[in-house]
Amino acid sequence: MFYHVQNLINPIVADEPDPSAANALQEGLGGQFGEMRTMMQYLFQSFNFRGQAKPYLDLIQGIGIEEISHVELISKTISRLLDGAPEYKGKKFDVPGKDGDPVMDMAKEQMNPHHFIVGAQGSMPVDAAGNPWSGSYVHCNGNLVLDLLDNLVLESTGRLQKCRIYQMSENKTLRATVAFLIARDEAHEMAFAKALESLGVDWGKVLPIPKFDSSQYPEVKKLIDAGVNREQYHFRLDGSLMEKLYSGSAPANDGTELTTLKEPRESYEIPDAPERPEEFSPGLDPELQDLVDAFNELKEKNGKKAKGRNGR
Amino acid sequence: MFYHVQNLINPIVADEPDPSAANALQEGLGGQFGEMRTMMQYLFQSFNFRGQAKPYLDLIQGIGIEEISHVELISKTISRLLDGAPEYKGKKFDVPGKDGDPVMDMAKEQMNPHHFIVGAQGSMPVDAAGNPWSGSYVHCNGNLVLDLLDNLVLESTGRLQKCRIYQMSENKTLRATVAFLIARDEAHEMAFAKALESLGVDWGKVLPIPKFDSSQYPEVKKLIDAGVNREQYHFRLDGSLMEKLYSGSAPANDGTELTTLKEPRESYEIPDAPERPEEFSPGLDPELQDLVDAFNELKEKNGKKAKGRNGR
Amino acid sequence: MFYHVQNLINPIVADEPDPSAANALQEGLGGQFGEMRTMMQYLFQSFNFRGQAKPYLDLIQGIGIEEISHVELISKTISRLLDGAPEYKGKKFDVPGKDGDPVMDMAKEQMNPHHFIVGAQGSMPVDAAGNPWSGSYVHCNGNLVLDLLDNLVLESTGRLQKCRIYQMSENKTLRATVAFLIARDEAHEMAFAKALESLGVDWGKVLPIPKFDSSQYPEVKKLIDAGVNREQYHFRLDGSLMEKLYSGSAPANDGTELTTLKEPRESYEIPDAPERPEEFSPGLDPELQDLVDAFNELKEKNGKKAKGRNGR
Amino acid sequence: MFYHVQNLINPIVADEPDPSAANALQEGLGGQFGEMRTMMQYLFQSFNFRGQAKPYLDLIQGIGIEEISHVELISKTISRLLDGAPEYKGKKFDVPGKDGDPVMDMAKEQMNPHHFIVGAQGSMPVDAAGNPWSGSYVHCNGNLVLDLLDNLVLESTGRLQKCRIYQMSENKTLRATVAFLIARDEAHEMAFAKALESLGVDWGKVLPIPKFDSSQYPEVKKLIDAGVNREQYHFRLDGSLMEKLYSGSAPANDGTELTTLKEPRESYEIPDAPERPEEFSPGLDPELQDLVDAFNELKEKNGKKAKGRNGR
Amino acid sequence: MFYHVQNLINPIVADEPDPSAANALQEGLGGQFGEMRTMMQYLFQSFNFRGQAKPYLDLIQGIGIEEISHVELISKTISRLLDGAPEYKGKKFDVPGKDGDPVMDMAKEQMNPHHFIVGAQGSMPVDAAGNPWSGSYVHCNGNLVLDLLDNLVLESTGRLQKCRIYQMSENKTLRATVAFLIARDEAHEMAFAKALESLGVDWGKVLPIPKFDSSQYPEVKKLIDAGVNREQYHFRLDGSLMEKLYSGSAPANDGTELTTLKEPRESYEIPDAPERPEEFSPGLDPELQDLVDAFNELKEKNGKKAKGRNGR
Amino acid sequence: MFYHVQNLINPIVADEPDPSAANALQEGLGGQFGEMRTMMQYLFQSFNFRGQAKPYLDLIQGIGIEEISHVELISKTISRLLDGAPEYKGKKFDVPGKDGDPVMDMAKEQMNPHHFIVGAQGSMPVDAAGNPWSGSYVHCNGNLVLDLLDNLVLESTGRLQKCRIYQMSENKTLRATVAFLIARDEAHEMAFAKALESLGVDWGKVLPIPKFDSSQYPEVKKLIDAGVNREQYHFRLDGSLMEKLYSGSAPANDGTELTTLKEPRESYEIPDAPERPEEFSPGLDPELQDLVDAFNELKEKNGKKAKGRNGR
Repeated sequence: MFYHVQNLINPIVADEPDPSAANALQEGLGGQFGEMRTMMQYLFQSFNFRGQAKPYLDLIQGIGIEEISHVELISKTISRLLDGAPEYKGKKFDVPGKDGDPVMDMAKEQMNPHHFIVGAQGSMPVDAAGNPWSGSYVHCNGNLVLDLLDNLVLESTGRLQKCRIYQMSENKTLRATVAFLIARDEAHEMAFAKALESLGVDWGKVLPIPKFDSSQYPEVKKLIDAGVNREQYHFRLDGSLMEKLYSGSAPANDGTELTTLKEPRESYEIPDAPERPEEFSPGLDPELQDLVDAFNELKEKNGKKAKGRNGR
Repeated sequence: MFYHVQNLINPIVADEPDPSAANALQEGLGGQFGEMRTMMQYLFQSFNFRGQAKPYLDLIQGIGIEEISHVELISKTISRLLDGAPEYKGKKFDVPGKDGDPVMDMAKEQMNPHHFIVGAQGSMPVDAAGNPWSGSYVHCNGNLVLDLLDNLVLESTGRLQKCRIYQMSENKTLRATVAFLIARDEAHEMAFAKALESLGVDWGKVLPIPKFDSSQYPEVKKLIDAGVNREQYHFRLDGSLMEKLYSGSAPANDGTELTTLKEPRESYEIPDAPERPEEFSPGLDPELQDLVDAFNELKEKNGKKAKGRNGR
Repeated sequence: MFYHVQNLINPIVADEPDPSAANALQEGLGGQFGEMRTMMQYLFQSFNFRGQAKPYLDLIQGIGIEEISHVELISKTISRLLDGAPEYKGKKFDVPGKDGDPVMDMAKEQMNPHHFIVGAQGSMPVDAAGNPWSGSYVHCNGNLVLDLLDNLVLESTGRLQKCRIYQMSENKTLRATVAFLIARDEAHEMAFAKALESLGVDWGKVLPIPKFDSSQYPEVKKLIDAGVNREQYHFRLDGSLMEKLYSGSAPANDGTELTTLKEPRESYEIPDAPERPEEFSPGLDPELQDLVDAFNELKEKNGKKAKGRNGR
Repeated sequence: MFYHVQNLINPIVADEPDPSAANALQEGLGGQFGEMRTMMQYLFQSFNFRGQAKPYLDLIQGIGIEEISHVELISKTISRLLDGAPEYKGKKFDVPGKDGDPVMDMAKEQMNPHHFIVGAQGSMPVDAAGNPWSGSYVHCNGNLVLDLLDNLVLESTGRLQKCRIYQMSENKTLRATVAFLIARDEAHEMAFAKALESLGVDWGKVLPIPKFDSSQYPEVKKLIDAGVNREQYHFRLDGSLMEKLYSGSAPANDGTELTTLKEPRESYEIPDAPERPEEFSPGLDPELQDLVDAFNELKEKNGKKAKGRNGR
Repeated sequence: MFYHVQNLINPIVADEPDPSAANALQEGLGGQFGEMRTMMQYLFQSFNFRGQAKPYLDLIQGIGIEEISHVELISKTISRLLDGAPEYKGKKFDVPGKDGDPVMDMAKEQMNPHHFIVGAQGSMPVDAAGNPWSGSYVHCNGNLVLDLLDNLVLESTGRLQKCRIYQMSENKTLRATVAFLIARDEAHEMAFAKALESLGVDWGKVLPIPKFDSSQYPEVKKLIDAGVNREQYHFRLDGSLMEKLYSGSAPANDGTELTTLKEPRESYEIPDAPERPEEFSPGLDPELQDLVDAFNELKEKNGKKAKGRNGR
Repeated sequence: MFYHVQNLINPIVADEPDPSAANALQEGLGGQFGEMRTMMQYLFQSFNFRGQAKPYLDLIQGIGIEEISHVELISKTISRLLDGAPEYKGKKFDVPGKDGDPVMDMAKEQMNPHHFIVGAQGSMPVDAAGNPWSGSYVHCNGNLVLDLLDNLVLESTGRLQKCRIYQMSENKTLRATVAFLIARDEAHEMAFAKALESLGVDWGKVLPIPKFDSSQYPEVKKLIDAGVNREQYHFRLDGSLMEKLYSGSAPANDGTELTTLKEPRESYEIPDAPERPEEFSPGLDPELQDLVDAFNELKEKNGKKAKGRNGR
């Protein structure tokens, strides 16, 4: 059974809108090796887990739970990168495009026009080429060694693609999220490699994949310095056996150590997304807005909610 | 950010394996109107939510969080319905099919042979006709009225399909889960219909969809008597504004009242899934099993963990 | 601009329900070479037609219009083949499955359980293996010779598949429709082959494809005797140049002649489809039924409408 | 059974070619909420209709017939927007690209290069992201309330997307068609909402979706002034019961009235599409052209045909 | 550049037709982890190979070439398993199904009716659930370590699925091919694991995947005794550097040795496939058959061709 | 059974990188009418061939074998067109993007960003709109006349699309490959048309499709002058009956003659593909590179291998 806190696992950093950066990042969300796949693959593997090797179950499922928060983070990041592109000069309750004014003329030439036609400048469950996510991406073989190896390939491919995306834009909104995911994918590579190490494999020097010094990316360096690439969270309110596997020396064989925590040391406020009248989102006219306002008495309450908080 | 407790939202009731019942239930998991869709649709709508109508956000997102637990429940139910069909007489570490013995000969003629070839008698992200789940199922328009109406259609279609599946089998494992989902889909219909009622719609007598007395299904009656079809949980560790919408008279206009709770009144132990040597799942040979056992010192600890518990 | 008459292009012949025959026939509706493809391919080719060769346009488009009526016919045939399978003993307004009675237990083991879970014992836009119809089936190259050749292949493949389906069941409902489509596919083969003949091709003795004496199928013989396989209709209320191409000796080079007509010599009443309470279709409860009845004053009028008629 | 008149339901307005506008409009043709879906969904619902509520059948089917004419209109509009982009300077029978001249060099960088490689500057059954149309888009549940609600969501989403597309270009060819479809989608919203009103729903002020004053779009205003958004056509040559539902006050509750007509008050000539040698369309060389000309004696007849006319 | 010899890499063993065994085997051909994937994945990786590590290129490409012969073998095996099911009693040039005789009545209830409607009792590029093979299955990352690891997962999953399929039927036609593929997948596991060993990984005792004594399958035992699971062929007419990697101790660490050969020690005659008049395959009528016979003077030559031979 | 020589069937001509030209060419590789389809369609038809008309089998299969070499050629051409776009200034073992330098900033705005995110500037099994190749493209009906006609349509559509692509770029790398494929598609059109001619069809003057003088394309003229468009290779190491069909006058009826050869008169060296550190391809760090070098003693041997050679 699942629970939620309306905070993010990493902060959204503000920068200009950049629709093609948003589109590249879709690969990390809805691509064949993106976060929707990791989330679904690990959840299906854990729901279908057979036998008594519970620490392996808790490891796979714990990472799966984290991936839901990654889907949340990357969705928010894409939305933020799209938000305000194209920029609409009209005000709330104005009719966008009235008198023939083409307020979204650039939108039809963006990488994925669905971001503006189908969604309201928001994320979608598709990849960077516009293909919808498919259930066929999920591998759940039921054989423990094979599932662990498949998961290692999945994390490695995800990390490779994110290292490529990192280089495609200096946009700070994109980079903050991508850097975090590079560090976390490395932590997850360690997890599945460590589980295989427990079954006798010695990885020598091939890890992480791709093999390079990601601390030369400034945004990644800060996270590595904080140990983010060598710790894993179980997000379990009722305890977890994850630590039996995720501890001791890292299978990268670089002298680092692995640490299991219940949850990340910090969480972060979710920025509000403004109304976009040109997208009719949320698209309430004054009559309907009055109903919402009266019903919810929201006017006086806005802005008070949703402080960053982690104590439970 | 998401959290987990290794308990189920509804109990798995034991009965015989029934692969075609399992396959029918796949529609409720990976079908176009199944739980993967509801989960993803509500999460995407909440991650991309625009404007200040926070109770609407909390309502949509809260139901989305519940749907993850539904995916968990229905996955476990499908696994259970498949488990032991075909029945393997050999023991652990035996080689299944040795000397040419066809231990899975019936498997090739089941509704979806992938349950035995690709998965290890477990659930898959596909529908009852074997089509993989698709990201194109997720509707996230950004217009509040439209998204609420789309969600109402989604829940209504899900409920219709589950009422049809209910009639296809008397298997108790299937019926327990389907009855629960019929009751919950009705609760969710109430949620989205109530949100539209707050915007001025009067539903008259058309709800729920399909319109019939589901309390004549014995398994559903127990849940209705317990109020399960008129309550909604927010699963938020940091509070929620859901109750502003989900309270007062039900939009079915049948004299019932809606209630918002943090979480269900009870949760339920997850039954262990036994090893299936004929599927090579988990497929450890004695050498690898020793490593697992030594590493985890599992032998003495088995059976002690994971009692039903809800207190946090 | 399109118009409709609520009659069928060929009669539905009554017989027992047969879900696997219905499923085989889905290939002729939603398969890669089925009627949805022919309809869409010819309509797209005609909407995108370039240049002044108007008789070719009128030929392609006229056949395209006929194909909409084929989609109607084959949909109705599939619905009829499914109707009452599984048979429900309860009455209208009864709750199907009440007290745990499994009224659709055989449905979960049919070729495509979607016929019972997703549709209400009705046709779907899918093929006989359950794959949804795809826009990628439509070929519209814009090159006249190539489009005609592609259309000839399409009709030939459709005819081949229907000849195979014919042999799969003696069910009279299936056979009446399949025999009609075999004859019409042959007429369409003649059309596209004749258009290529006008550009200089001599087909020798290769037509029709597949090459065999289909008059040995009793249901086809009646249609051939009536000339159905050598006539083509243009369905145009404002005249057509189709006859310039579709006349003279048939390109099968068997001594037969081609004839163009405005429309078939006869059309046929559409049989009513009864309510299916076990599918909640249409699923009105007494309250809603009263609204429908009162609003429409239908009770006294039922049965008076929709006689077979063709005069306009 | 279906009939055709070679006229359009709305005029094609001339303007410059604009391939990215054409691509955006593909969403309205082959997108998940485009005209191919509405056409197929209503036809399947009407072909599979159960029970005696004939006015509901006639309403759903009548709109389905109109949608075929919408597919025709939007196809022609896309073709027109693509026609001549890229512009080829050569004459008929010239070899395009001879001596290495790159006559379509811009084509490889357009939103969907298939418009130039696969089609001959014509429409395709795909959406604005290039995904082929899928049969899974068609919802045909068989439950009357649910199908009406699903149809209302479909029309509302279509209208929302077209309002977004309207803002993406000032091209007159695009705007004329999009404005017409915005008005018609509103008429269709009224139809399905009215049918639900007959079953007891009161829509208050939530309609149309999206809720805004579309008469501020000049092209839409003219149509609203002419009543196009409050009338529905049944296109039935043998009469229809549609008017029983589509009459009286509009469910938008704005004081307007609904009117049922047999067909639109006017129809419009289809503009010829010129040959495109660079696409080899129709691609006849002088030898083949002579055959076409001789066979059809077309030279003297061109231009005489196909005046706008509506009287039958 | 590629060459061919019309022989098979393993013999087809005769047994009764078995359509559901054929369908299970489709997973090994057109499934996500079947031979079409391995063939295409290794070919794409080798065509896109970067850098100077030529032995790795030759290893990947050599296995890719072998996979084309596996596609050939498995296609032939599926055809053979389908051939004669359903059995047709008529003779060549008879009209199947004449006078209403249902000669293929069982075909509509087989696992994939496409085997009889779309194909002529032959193999198709689909999996065991009827899904068409997809280009998205091909992983070609360009990173050497990752591609090798992905290939190891691919072979391991293929082997796991084939071990499951082995148990589903005692049919000798199926078992001969599946046993061969189990042995070859193990040889390929060794190949990619060895290449990773050359980069420093020590696999301990986890290989092969799944881990069990496959020599207890009698058909596999014969192949293991002949060394088939520890040898690899390069199929290169111009030499290969494969042996630099594929030699020495096997990474299964079980004391076995790896051997590189140009090609298998033997190859095998391809059995003729008889005509199937009920499928209209090849479907020549006497007129067309005479043309074929006269043109090719085949009658006297049949049976003389295509003896098993390997010397070139 | 298949064999390979590491040479190309046509040379790669050097020119600047051009990612949108590469993307257009993807249609010829992974499109519905591209080389992956022809390769798979002919191989499946030959593997499933029924009856004794062996020259037809050898014709279809021989062309199928050639198509594998076309897949190789077009893959290499796409890789070459992508190679170095975007250009990376760093050296091997540098960390691309370090200190935040965006080395691939243009990549996110290319036609298919997958070329840079998923692949390492290499070809993919997708079309020019980014859709993955599908097994549903393969037509294998089993009826000889129909399969030949389908193959003729396939080659004609391929040739039409390549003639359009030719005009989209003057890039010499693209043009050399496209011109070769235009000539070969014409040779293949002749093959299937000739086979149908042997069954009695007279093609008059409709061939080739599209009908125009392709010798006015300079790159094609050279190939036509060398006879490349009127010869066919069987690539069989054990002889072939192809020549029985592929000889005599061409079915284009233009006075040319057809010639069958074992293989092309020449083959061509495959250019090396350089490392792309910005893609982490092959992505070895100094430690791993040392292992590769030591293991393979490659340093001294580079450059010596793989001269163009054809003698076997």
